[in-house]
Amino acid sequence: LLTTLGVTIERLAPGYVELGLASRADLMQQHGFVHAGAISTIADSACGYAAYTGFPQDRDVLTVEFSMSLVSPAAQSAFVAAGRVIRSGRTLTIRRGEVYGLGEDGERNLVALIQATMMAVTRMSANA
Amino acid sequence: LLTTLGVTIERLAPGYVELGLASRADLMQQHGFVHAGAISTIADSACGYAAYTGFPQDRDVLTVEFSMSLVSPAAQSAFVAAGRVIRSGRTLTIRRGEVYGLGEDGERNLVALIQATMMAVTRMSANA
Amino acid sequence: LLTTLGVTIERLAPGYVELGLASRADLMQQHGFVHAGAISTIADSACGYAAYTGFPQDRDVLTVEFSMSLVSPAAQSAFVAAGRVIRSGRTLTIRRGEVYGLGEDGERNLVALIQATMMAVTRMSANA
Amino acid sequence: LLTTLGVTIERLAPGYVELGLASRADLMQQHGFVHAGAISTIADSACGYAAYTGFPQDRDVLTVEFSMSLVSPAAQSAFVAAGRVIRSGRTLTIRRGEVYGLGEDGERNLVALIQATMMAVTRMSANA
Repeated sequence: LLTTLGVTIERLAPGYVELGLASRADLMQQHGFVHAGAISTIADSACGYAAYTGFPQDRDVLTVEFSMSLVSPAAQSAFVAAGRVIRSGRTLTIRRGEVYGLGEDGERNLVALIQATMMAVTRMSANA
Repeated sequence: LLTTLGVTIERLAPGYVELGLASRADLMQQHGFVHAGAISTIADSACGYAAYTGFPQDRDVLTVEFSMSLVSPAAQSAFVAAGRVIRSGRTLTIRRGEVYGLGEDGERNLVALIQATMMAVTRMSANA
Repeated sequence: LLTTLGVTIERLAPGYVELGLASRADLMQQHGFVHAGAISTIADSACGYAAYTGFPQDRDVLTVEFSMSLVSPAAQSAFVAAGRVIRSGRTLTIRRGEVYGLGEDGERNLVALIQATMMAVTRMSANA
Repeated sequence: LLTTLGVTIERLAPGYVELGLASRADLMQQHGFVHAGAISTIADSACGYAAYTGFPQDRDVLTVEFSMSLVSPAAQSAFVAAGRVIRSGRTLTIRRGEVYGLGEDGERNLVALIQATMMAVTRMSANA
């Protein structure tokens, strides 16, 4: 799905990841804003990648749940989603993230908040 | 975005909507399941459409927030998202929905839950 | 906490529990409604008890996260919180519940929705 | 409810509030941890007070929804809940907060995260 949306990796540090998304006509909803689903996808994915950075090779993550708060309409032409690990437990990992719309001068305007719970699974065995 | 994902309207009743989604390689994440972002998009959209059914023509909805619970991996080849209005207030509308994966015999297996808050806005004026 | 709030068990069935709460001056917030914290407590607890009904004796549950939607002000003098198990996995259990205010004729008016994730733990070992 | 729980105001700044809670036997659940309902109450309240700090005198807030993530068991003997305003709109205010358990040396250990939406209402008119 990330390829379909044209998502790019902007920054990759231990426990912290930023993903980029450019607005496109086919990502919009009826008001001309980027659809909440696309915003959620990059927010959830940034949180997911943030977890991988600290994981052993044979472990993977599945999203258990997330809460999105859509703070303001996604009217900008480009977005950055930041995700970071808040606490990494044996089974569950808690993450928070933000999505920013980029202004013409590159300033970041908050568009959405995410709070997510993910579960570590052994690779190739994805049954929760 | 809904067109990009290939989302179809399966049922449209007052306060209740069902949307369909067929799995495609480009909607998947690394495990071969449909990405949580795509599941969220149809869940959120089903909730949004459910609200429109009871709205005057000049009113529109914006999603304020939603909580997704990903109950089991989205391993099926087709999905239905059901959204219904729980309470429709002057400003805010509360919705709940479910996403089901369709089995080979058409039986519905719960994949995700959504609980969402939306805000009514006057059409053409989308500032929250 | 449940004793302090005066919470009562109203119904106990496999995977389904109802708890009761009577309004009291010391449970209110500044508007004279029962505080969202008290409403959340009975909603979360109803969901928790619902899980116990299907558990082996040596297992316990911890709440991982929950999302509350406060649908209308808790102005009634008595409340019932219903919690039920949506899916019970090996590690995680997903629940949904509702809180109703009881009208003078005993009719139920929806006050709040909850969607919760809980984790099964072995009794006496409560580290997540 | 805050008086019943023994909640104290620890810090009050524009858009930022900290509340304190001491553990008591009657606030605990079955594991000896402070009940998620009490943790949620101070988290929600800290977020609510944070909003008041920037409000005109005749305006009030009602919680619309909140998502709590219980990061680790509330095993400490004292807690601090921090709430801050993320974005304050005409109708809705978005807040985030954290609850910390205080260690013996006063260090803060993260216990819970909250993400909340509140609605501004005119005082004495509390109907959503």
